[in-house]
This record gives sequence, C-alpha cells and structure tokens, in this order.
Amino acid sequence: MTSNGTGGVLSHGYYFEDLSLGMEASYAKKITNEDVLAFAGLSGDVNPVHLSDDFAAGTIFKKRIAHGFLTGSLFSTVLGTKLPGPGCIYLSQSMKFRAPVYIGDEVIATLKITGLDAEKGRATLACDCAVNGKTVLEGEAVMMVARRAPRQ
Amino acid sequence: MTSNGTGGVLSHGYYFEDLSLGMEASYAKKITNEDVLAFAGLSGDVNPVHLSDDFAAGTIFKKRIAHGFLTGSLFSTVLGTKLPGPGCIYLSQSMKFRAPVYIGDEVIATLKITGLDAEKGRATLACDCAVNGKTVLEGEAVMMVARRAPRQ
Repeated sequence: MTSNGTGGVLSHGYYFEDLSLGMEASYAKKITNEDVLAFAGLSGDVNPVHLSDDFAAGTIFKKRIAHGFLTGSLFSTVLGTKLPGPGCIYLSQSMKFRAPVYIGDEVIATLKITGLDAEKGRATLACDCAVNGKTVLEGEAVMMVARRAPRQ
Repeated sequence: MTSNGTGGVLSHGYYFEDLSLGMEASYAKKITNEDVLAFAGLSGDVNPVHLSDDFAAGTIFKKRIAHGFLTGSLFSTVLGTKLPGPGCIYLSQSMKFRAPVYIGDEVIATLKITGLDAEKGRATLACDCAVNGKTVLEGEAVMMVARRAPRQ
C-alpha cells in the first residue's frame, strides 16, 4: 500500500485515482483456539458451537468452528490496511458463509477491485476467504475512497 | 431463548417450528478502548482510524472509531445465543454502515424475524445496531434452523 510516511504509522492508503480494476490484496491468519476464545469474550457470542467440544460434536460440523465474523473481519483488515487502506470509509459488506473454519485453519482473505464509480468515489471489491484453496466465505465490499485532490 | 437444560451450557436455541414473524431479541454492549485494541490485535486491522488519535482527528470522524466488524459481531451474538440461538447455521449477512461508533458508545443490536421459509428451514432477520436510538449499522441475516423432528 501507499503511505505518505509521516508519523511512523500507516498514514494513508490509496487515493481513488490510484485504484484500477483487478487490483488485489490479501491477508493470511491462522485461527487459534485463543483467537476464538478472545472473540467470544469480545463479542459476547458464546454459542457453544465455538466453545464446547461436546456440543460441536453433535452438530454437522463435528468439531468447534470459528465465529464467522472472526473470519469476516479479515476482509476489514485488508480494506483498512492494504486496499484501499487507511482513509477509506466502509459503506457496506455482504458475506455468504460457504463452509466452516476450524481451529488451526489458515484463512487467506483476498480482495479484488471489481468496480470503480468515479462520480461517487466508490470502489467495489469482491471478497474471498479460503482455507487450503477452498472458499469458506465470500462477499462484496463497497468503500468510499478519498480523491487525491478535491474536484474544482 | 429455549434450552434443553443439559450440561449447564446453552444447549439448543429455537427450533424452526418455534419461530414466528416479528420475534425479536437484543444484545447491548458498551464499546471500550480495550475492546478496540483487542479487536485490532485479533483481526490484524490496525487501520489508524481505530488506533491513532492524531490520524482520526484528520478524518471526517474527528475521533477514533470502533471497527465496523466489532459492531457487526453483535448481530452474530444475538443470532448465536438468543434468536435463533445455538444449533442454527449462519448462511449470510449483509451490513450497511450508516454512522460511526465511537469509543464509549453503547451499541444495542436488535434482530427481528422478517421471513420464514418452511420448505428450506430458513429464517431471515432484519438486523439493526443503534447508539442512542440512532441506527449506526443495519443489514439482514439468513439462518438455517433445525426442525424439532426430521420430516418423514
């Protein structure tokens, strides 16, 4: 991603003019048991399919699964840190949960620009999370992206 | 929510036959600075709009905001613990981010059943997160909900 280099933190992502169709960025994370426990604590989502081996064994998943929103948050990570990166504004996100994510799975979130609306300064991105090359979560994000210079 | 009472944990939510249009459930959470820092660590979303007072001051939000996915995770909390509750399967979620959530805000997530597809065993829920009575995030969830008894 681009950065103007001030302050030692990510200071700005791409401007709208820098974006083009087909640009991609990814983020990978291995989902640990600690992640699932922390997410349960943070969100309050203590659904036993995430926390109880016994309960999960009686479901179609057979084992405990990660929260879908934990997997989905990796979309936000790519959007907020890589493409378009800091400075963009999250307008919407859709998610279709295709398959479970188990503890120990490495999830790779990949986002790709599929639409650019120059009039509105909006970018649409196809969003995919995959485990071992298989899509577990897919969706679409729409971001408002600042222009490099205000239009006259 | 219903529970069969075994094991001391939430053991099953509503079955499909127990659901009706208009049923509602809510979950409230005050978003703290610690929550935002924890979510950044968990997701890897270190966008400075969430973490840097200086960066946030230069955005339209003026102050640091919570991650949209942290707010949205409260939908999952209601779905996974209250309505329909444990045992349901998350099929899809849409989210439209309407307004920022600031640190210290109390978010109330309210979900309401708006559709029931008996043939497919699916429930559709309208999802709303509000701060001080104003919607900050809205969307729709679709869940697969187990029937009380398998159909013959």
